[in-house]
Amino acid sequence: MEKPAVAEPADPPPYFQAHVFVCCNRRPDGHPRGSCAARGSEKLRDYMKVRAKELGLRGVRVNQAGCLDRCEFGPTLVIYPEGVWYRPETPADVDEILATHLQAGGRVPRLMLTEKDVPPPKR
Amino acid sequence: MEKPAVAEPADPPPYFQAHVFVCCNRRPDGHPRGSCAARGSEKLRDYMKVRAKELGLRGVRVNQAGCLDRCEFGPTLVIYPEGVWYRPETPADVDEILATHLQAGGRVPRLMLTEKDVPPPKR
Repeated sequence: MEKPAVAEPADPPPYFQAHVFVCCNRRPDGHPRGSCAARGSEKLRDYMKVRAKELGLRGVRVNQAGCLDRCEFGPTLVIYPEGVWYRPETPADVDEILATHLQAGGRVPRLMLTEKDVPPPKR
Repeated sequence: MEKPAVAEPADPPPYFQAHVFVCCNRRPDGHPRGSCAARGSEKLRDYMKVRAKELGLRGVRVNQAGCLDRCEFGPTLVIYPEGVWYRPETPADVDEILATHLQAGGRVPRLMLTEKDVPPPKR
C-alpha cells in the first residue's frame, strides 16, 4: 500500500475578502510609458478609500501600491484574490467598480484590462 | 424548462502568477501600533525585489504597498492570489519565502500570519 501523503495544513482564511491595490507610481514628466500618478491615480485612490468606507464595505481594503507595470493603461488597479484589473478614469468609474464588483460580486467589462493589454517589449 | 442562465465571460487569465505586496507604511516614531517601515520593511522590500530578479522568477511581481493594517505584526507582506501573509524580519527570511513559497509552491509556516494575528480593537 502506498504511504498516505502528508497533507500540508490549509492556509489561514483570507484576512480581507477583497484587497484592492491602486497604482500610484509617478514617473518623471515626459517618460514614454507615462505613469498612473501622472494620469490622476492618487485622486482616484483617495476617492475610492473614502467611498469604500462610506459604503461600509466589510472585508474590503483599498491600498496604494508601487508600479504595477501596466503603465500604458493607467490609472490601473487590481482586485485580489480574483486578480481582476481595471482602468478607472473618473470617480464615476470608481463608483461603478465599487457597486458592481465589490458590492455585487459582478464585473465591469468596459473598464477591465485583458490579456491583450500588455506593455510593448523593453528595448 | 428553465431558461439557461446567461454565463458571465470568464475573467482574463492572471497577469502575474504571484503578486507580492510588502507594506512600507511609516508612522511617526512612538505611535502605539508601530509600523512596518519603522521595523525595516523598506530594506526587505529592496532585497526581495533584487533577489526575485536575480533568481529569474517568471510571473512574480514584488511591489510596495501602503498600510496593510496588520501593523503590530510587521514587517508584513501578502502574496496573492493565495492571500498568504508573512512577517519576515531578515533577508534570510525573505530568501526562505522566495525559495519555499514562490519557487517551490510551498509554505513557510514559522513566518506566516494566521487568523489569530489581529490588531487590538480600535478605541
